[in-house]
Amino acid sequence: MNDTAIVETELTRHQEGTAVQATDWLAREEPLEIRVRGRGVAVTMRTPGHDAELACGFLLTEGMLHERRDVIEVAPCPEGENILNVFLAPTVPVNFDELTRHVFASSSCGLCGKATIDSVHQQFPMATSKTRFNPNVLRSLPEHLRAAQEGFEKSGGLHAAGIFDASGHLLVLREDVGRHNAVDKVIGWGFLNGLLPLTEHVLMVSGRASFEIVQKALAAGIAVVAAVSAPSSLAVEFARESNQTLIGFLRGSNFNIYSHPDRIS
Amino acid sequence: MNDTAIVETELTRHQEGTAVQATDWLAREEPLEIRVRGRGVAVTMRTPGHDAELACGFLLTEGMLHERRDVIEVAPCPEGENILNVFLAPTVPVNFDELTRHVFASSSCGLCGKATIDSVHQQFPMATSKTRFNPNVLRSLPEHLRAAQEGFEKSGGLHAAGIFDASGHLLVLREDVGRHNAVDKVIGWGFLNGLLPLTEHVLMVSGRASFEIVQKALAAGIAVVAAVSAPSSLAVEFARESNQTLIGFLRGSNFNIYSHPDRIS
Repeated sequence: MNDTAIVETELTRHQEGTAVQATDWLAREEPLEIRVRGRGVAVTMRTPGHDAELACGFLLTEGMLHERRDVIEVAPCPEGENILNVFLAPTVPVNFDELTRHVFASSSCGLCGKATIDSVHQQFPMATSKTRFNPNVLRSLPEHLRAAQEGFEKSGGLHAAGIFDASGHLLVLREDVGRHNAVDKVIGWGFLNGLLPLTEHVLMVSGRASFEIVQKALAAGIAVVAAVSAPSSLAVEFARESNQTLIGFLRGSNFNIYSHPDRIS
Repeated sequence: MNDTAIVETELTRHQEGTAVQATDWLAREEPLEIRVRGRGVAVTMRTPGHDAELACGFLLTEGMLHERRDVIEVAPCPEGENILNVFLAPTVPVNFDELTRHVFASSSCGLCGKATIDSVHQQFPMATSKTRFNPNVLRSLPEHLRAAQEGFEKSGGLHAAGIFDASGHLLVLREDVGRHNAVDKVIGWGFLNGLLPLTEHVLMVSGRASFEIVQKALAAGIAVVAAVSAPSSLAVEFARESNQTLIGFLRGSNFNIYSHPDRIS
């Protein structure tokens, strides 16, 4: 964890009918503007820390970055640390309209889950990993994740994402007030360290698995996504069509597999 | 709840070391495009149902709508029910750039929490309610909320938002895979029924309270926001400067008050 992730606050605690003054920790939340070629492409409310990873993870999962050499440098603006410039290699094409509109291309059938899935598959290949994962290794992940969640422990207000290898070793963990940001940070970490695609690894998240989480995993080549809580219908549909194994309610000694259970042996 | 909120799925359940085939419920997630004057202004991944409320709540909390008469009709496009046209009165001004950029105006100090708060206060007046809330009424809210969360009960994958009056009566509850969407839906419900501003009411959410949740409450004139889980630093800072009472960790007989505790008597 990073010292900037939490901040102390004063509060009034109502306990057993009495009100007392107390202090406690809050998860920090601040805006971050990501700029590419001098232009703001996104503002996200995030927990400060690991901002370069967040920016690269975001741009990669949006389909703008592909290889480590696409990024020359990531540096805060002189105007302040909440504005981050991502300096791209001159050869990287940028479609600003696509990035700033946040609108999926809708197919002739109109806008639907299927059209959304198809538009992602036009950008990212399906998962190809043949690695098998031991159920006992999977069962050990939540405990490892939780043990590393220092900010959550103190504030109760941070989501976590972690990347594990097939033997259950935790490579990286990041915490953030935003679930998507935590995932962008671990993927951005892999990108900046030249480790993508992470085809033989598991992405684990501390909460629910939405479409966007599973889509971001695919962008990083990750074939197995595990969540402590429930997946959504579109996350399951997407994982099935992307050849990804989606695991939910991974807690205690139990878990559910919603797609491609053949990877869990 | 709405029948469209959940959907059945097949899965493999690993329980006590054995794998069994089973069926279970998933929270539905599908894209919704909101169109204003023929132009797409946002795509959100939402749980289908109460889409008109979602669209109006979103546009209101973005500062585009102010009064009930600003909206003439809300209707799906002929292209499909996942594209929704919000027909505005001809006199309503629309700044498409502001809506589609999702970028806060940054002040001369650069982008920071303070600048973000200031930019919201330029659009929405501070909360003025003088209503006092009984701690016992507050303690009763989580149970009422939970009892009405039919979709969560079945799928474990839906967030909820509810609006209560000062006597603890639940006016409306909506569930969604997205926390912000659930809040937009209850606020949109209030808007479409001509009930805004809801100055003497509480907005309660089933999860955490981020900046955006508290900001949306202010847009609807709501002075008291309660969350089952943790608030973020910017949510607390925003509530303090907006004269809103922010309550977190409201569960069992305990809760924390982070701002303006004088409303809780």
